[in-house]
Amino acid sequence: MTEQLSPFASRGSTEEVEEGRAFTPKFDANGLVTCVVTDTGSGDVLMVAHMNGEALSKTIKSGEAWYYSRSRNRLWRKGETSGHVQRVVEMRVDCDQDAVWIKVEQAGPGACHTGRRSCFYRAVPIGGNGGGVALEFRDAEKAYDPRAVYGDQKER
Amino acid sequence: MTEQLSPFASRGSTEEVEEGRAFTPKFDANGLVTCVVTDTGSGDVLMVAHMNGEALSKTIKSGEAWYYSRSRNRLWRKGETSGHVQRVVEMRVDCDQDAVWIKVEQAGPGACHTGRRSCFYRAVPIGGNGGGVALEFRDAEKAYDPRAVYGDQKER
Repeated sequence: MTEQLSPFASRGSTEEVEEGRAFTPKFDANGLVTCVVTDTGSGDVLMVAHMNGEALSKTIKSGEAWYYSRSRNRLWRKGETSGHVQRVVEMRVDCDQDAVWIKVEQAGPGACHTGRRSCFYRAVPIGGNGGGVALEFRDAEKAYDPRAVYGDQKER
Repeated sequence: MTEQLSPFASRGSTEEVEEGRAFTPKFDANGLVTCVVTDTGSGDVLMVAHMNGEALSKTIKSGEAWYYSRSRNRLWRKGETSGHVQRVVEMRVDCDQDAVWIKVEQAGPGACHTGRRSCFYRAVPIGGNGGGVALEFRDAEKAYDPRAVYGDQKER
């Protein structure tokens, strides 16, 4: 629970949340909002991550993407290990203010810790039954060697 | 908890999850994965929603977007009230398989229950301190009258 660190205002009515100009993010039970990250050049979704109040605030202040790692339970500046920082060109918030969308300039060869440009390098075929489906690799060529960048670390 | 409805295989090692062809979605404590929805024409993010195993399976089988509404605690076919259905052109899954990205053809004037094309119709200015920030409306013109479509219902 990290919501108490939030510098943001408390939420008003549904009308105020949806039609107002106050930024009143809705953090979930773990104190997080969902963040969708797209590449400002290609428009592709690079990754989906989470922000607590502090990550959101640091991102807004600095113009660089900060996240909260659920697996490592800590604040995380994207690119702190790899140098693959993300400069935020625009941030949007959705109608009920529980998700943000940032358009970024991705520094370096890629956003994904596996070495790809995007984390979404596999397609789920439509029309099957979903069970036992075989994923199809798309745009999945490695843009860099993750072992050379991260070593044994698992930064994302 | 709806994970027990999932028709999907159980997860293997990190290597298998990230580099394999088995679709083994990672549902959260509430049995949900995050779903990012983009417009196949404009590339814009239309909405962020959640899918349980049943919604994911129905989406894959039917090629139309199904979600799980956390506020209404029920399965939900996008457009069931409004007619604003979403035809799935492509589904991608991310490296750790806890998020999917669908590219859709959005039927009707918009995806957002507030009447906009996209749920992300407000920008958060970058460079401020985040607290008390004033949102800026962008691409926020109403594409339809939500009261005429939904009445008092709050479908999203």
